[in-house]
Amino acid sequence: MTVLKVFSKPKLKNAILIEGLPGVGNIGRVAAGYLVEELGAKKFAELYSKWFFPFVMLHKNYKIHLLKNEFYYVKAKKKGQRDIVLLVGDCQSLSPQGHYEVAEKILDFAEKIGVKEIITIGGLATGDLEGSKKVLGAVTDDKDLKKYKKFKINFDAGEKVGYIVGAVGLLLGLWKQRDKDGICLLGQTTGFPIVTDPKAAESVLNVLQKILNIKLDMKKLDKKVKDMEHFIKKIEALQKRALMEITKSGDHKTTKSDEQRYIG
Amino acid sequence: MTVLKVFSKPKLKNAILIEGLPGVGNIGRVAAGYLVEELGAKKFAELYSKWFFPFVMLHKNYKIHLLKNEFYYVKAKKKGQRDIVLLVGDCQSLSPQGHYEVAEKILDFAEKIGVKEIITIGGLATGDLEGSKKVLGAVTDDKDLKKYKKFKINFDAGEKVGYIVGAVGLLLGLWKQRDKDGICLLGQTTGFPIVTDPKAAESVLNVLQKILNIKLDMKKLDKKVKDMEHFIKKIEALQKRALMEITKSGDHKTTKSDEQRYIG
Amino acid sequence: MTVLKVFSKPKLKNAILIEGLPGVGNIGRVAAGYLVEELGAKKFAELYSKWFFPFVMLHKNYKIHLLKNEFYYVKAKKKGQRDIVLLVGDCQSLSPQGHYEVAEKILDFAEKIGVKEIITIGGLATGDLEGSKKVLGAVTDDKDLKKYKKFKINFDAGEKVGYIVGAVGLLLGLWKQRDKDGICLLGQTTGFPIVTDPKAAESVLNVLQKILNIKLDMKKLDKKVKDMEHFIKKIEALQKRALMEITKSGDHKTTKSDEQRYIG
Amino acid sequence: MTVLKVFSKPKLKNAILIEGLPGVGNIGRVAAGYLVEELGAKKFAELYSKWFFPFVMLHKNYKIHLLKNEFYYVKAKKKGQRDIVLLVGDCQSLSPQGHYEVAEKILDFAEKIGVKEIITIGGLATGDLEGSKKVLGAVTDDKDLKKYKKFKINFDAGEKVGYIVGAVGLLLGLWKQRDKDGICLLGQTTGFPIVTDPKAAESVLNVLQKILNIKLDMKKLDKKVKDMEHFIKKIEALQKRALMEITKSGDHKTTKSDEQRYIG
Repeated sequence: MTVLKVFSKPKLKNAILIEGLPGVGNIGRVAAGYLVEELGAKKFAELYSKWFFPFVMLHKNYKIHLLKNEFYYVKAKKKGQRDIVLLVGDCQSLSPQGHYEVAEKILDFAEKIGVKEIITIGGLATGDLEGSKKVLGAVTDDKDLKKYKKFKINFDAGEKVGYIVGAVGLLLGLWKQRDKDGICLLGQTTGFPIVTDPKAAESVLNVLQKILNIKLDMKKLDKKVKDMEHFIKKIEALQKRALMEITKSGDHKTTKSDEQRYIG
Repeated sequence: MTVLKVFSKPKLKNAILIEGLPGVGNIGRVAAGYLVEELGAKKFAELYSKWFFPFVMLHKNYKIHLLKNEFYYVKAKKKGQRDIVLLVGDCQSLSPQGHYEVAEKILDFAEKIGVKEIITIGGLATGDLEGSKKVLGAVTDDKDLKKYKKFKINFDAGEKVGYIVGAVGLLLGLWKQRDKDGICLLGQTTGFPIVTDPKAAESVLNVLQKILNIKLDMKKLDKKVKDMEHFIKKIEALQKRALMEITKSGDHKTTKSDEQRYIG
Repeated sequence: MTVLKVFSKPKLKNAILIEGLPGVGNIGRVAAGYLVEELGAKKFAELYSKWFFPFVMLHKNYKIHLLKNEFYYVKAKKKGQRDIVLLVGDCQSLSPQGHYEVAEKILDFAEKIGVKEIITIGGLATGDLEGSKKVLGAVTDDKDLKKYKKFKINFDAGEKVGYIVGAVGLLLGLWKQRDKDGICLLGQTTGFPIVTDPKAAESVLNVLQKILNIKLDMKKLDKKVKDMEHFIKKIEALQKRALMEITKSGDHKTTKSDEQRYIG
Repeated sequence: MTVLKVFSKPKLKNAILIEGLPGVGNIGRVAAGYLVEELGAKKFAELYSKWFFPFVMLHKNYKIHLLKNEFYYVKAKKKGQRDIVLLVGDCQSLSPQGHYEVAEKILDFAEKIGVKEIITIGGLATGDLEGSKKVLGAVTDDKDLKKYKKFKINFDAGEKVGYIVGAVGLLLGLWKQRDKDGICLLGQTTGFPIVTDPKAAESVLNVLQKILNIKLDMKKLDKKVKDMEHFIKKIEALQKRALMEITKSGDHKTTKSDEQRYIG
């Protein structure tokens, strides 16, 4: 039971999907959410799943809704831009098989509506309080490396970690299995405790502006994050639980065992 | 394998379903169980599921039965009343996906037999020994807020918690996805340790009498709870296990992190 | 993937199935295993399942086989006896839903081959070193109480525990849902640590002789248990794991919270 | 969702499949990986599954790929040799039912492409720092014992352990259920902490050379293991997690309870 509820069927051409689900530092969630607002993107579908927490969220103090992921779109406004699909939401899956099943559902839908390429956004927990704000990238194919090199992305993530965990990695990996291209962008953040990091989201948004050939007013980001505070507190609580779920069977040891790093 | 065993097919019109499965303080279980007895409701279906504990319950010391949920109904007796379906039982699901699958099965059946609206009953664990007995509410839609405001329900649950956990929330959330209306009523109770709270159940029953336009003899409630003591001890033991299952991957931190609250 | 491998199709009439899978004190396993040997029962089917441990067992030091459950049968030899099906094996399921799915598979097969009634055998962990060897019983229906009363079975299990856990309870509960009859027989044993208890198995075998109208030579039981030592050590190790699996989400509190009891 | 991606369909005759997935000491992974390189085997299929970790692996620092298992083949070059299929990969399944489902998928495919016999390679964790390098074997049938006795394999594994855990055991056990033959070869290694053991892999390769009637240059093994160091570090991290997953519900007690042994 992973269900898509489709409100409208936008006609998209050569679209690019940008995923920003809750994760480490909520970098993807904040960055993609800001794109939704600034670009005036329109919601056209929702996804909910038995693989999410068996909870409903309370909003406006008295109204409930199921935990869900949401699809928005915005059409290209000028030459050099592309149609964009934005994937945001309340949570990721709880269990390993849930991650795979929800990701496949998302990619089936993406293919159907005309998505040709995907960008996933996540965070790399460095443990440093004063860490670099450089954005790291990882791609599906060598030709993507060439394509994305010019956007000030660091392609040395593999020196710091061996794996990319959750939707950020899995959407890209399953997309590659379909012989399609994509990139993940990882903002660097402290990571522990789980705290939303608007600065890291800003770094990613700066890269995204170049890739998407759009211009964002970044001054409103701080205010936006403040407005989202109530919502963010809730997804942080969910993430804490989900993180413990995904890591309960092991430690965070990566290729550099002296550093505790986490990508989500 | 979530199986419905249907004994009879009552003809219901514009029915309202009231869910009272075991949960925090057993408020829903006690309130809905009392309605079954006082209204002389008739059992017409049972549900059992692989998502429940792999246990059988012993009753009368020598007879076993599978853990199950039960459907009862009572027809409207006068104008201004509605046909009522009551959902009670021994337990909720053990796992997240089980919660979703059992809830969908219940709602499919509810739609089929003519249920138009649902009321779920749960408890909010406040941690206060001398807490308020005000009943909290949360609805599926703004128009329900208007409709239910007159029944002395507090619609500020969202100030205290961010989520509603388990059947109480999920039945309502999945019902909303079907574009249908409902409300959950939360009695306030201490919550820890898991103790059945007849006083909180009484508060909810007082609200329900007004909503359903019925008159209950509340004096028998205490005696009824005493009669149920043996059964209640068993479902409390199950709840302790289920609660640990649902919370093993995280803490109970909610939007007010200084307070430990729980809804079930 | 729960697979039945059927070697032959015995023609059975009004058969009774006796379940003796590993559990507390291995009372069922030892008792049913002894019946297999003493009655010269013939293996006619095996069941294996993705819900068992992902292990193979080593026997004769160099040969492997999948963890499995086995079906044996023996035809009635004289008037007053019944055709008997014996269900023994290496293990029970690991997860709650596995318990349900394997039990349904077993009961589907039992119905198909002519089983009319079932007896499940388990142990009740009393915690007493010098406990009673009286056999406890629990039935599916009042009429079974009448039928089985004469066999020196104590029908007051419900005073000691609220639930019966695992295959012993679930097979009976799901069988009852099919409107069929049965009984579970519980030998009393210390229970912790997990140790095979041939004395408790003997008590159950004494009751079974009367029910089945058969005569067993009980003197060979001790030797038989000794011969099985190597096998028993292995299933004890598996049970320890399975017990921790089933109880990891809670304690063993039952209706008498001052006593730690366990049925399996 | 366990998916096979088949790149080419080799025509194989009376083929033998050699499994070397990550496990204790990575003995199978190193041995089978060395065979791939030394025999110049050709990749013809990949398998990925929702039962693996929901991670992607980073390689060359910037490129991701899904966790996967890979099939290679090499045709017989002279008389007395057989067509060989090699199964290597990044990981095993995470959950018990995943182990069964992936193993069945692998065996279905193996049958389809002409595999007649399988050899699985694993490690036995002895806990000894200076342990024996003798290779242990376990077979599906007595006739295999006769067949493999001449290859300096010790067939007394059952004196040391009661079970064989994971793909090494399960592939063989499910293969036996299909009335087919095979053997598992277990290199002996310290086992704790999880460290790749090229010496134990060499012992297994020496046995394999005889069985397969091939000649390998063993001098390159150490260099090869060094080259794989980066990859091995990653699979060691995954194994640590997987091991904790599979053992979280129990200890490692085996038939000799004074020794901590583990097979994977």
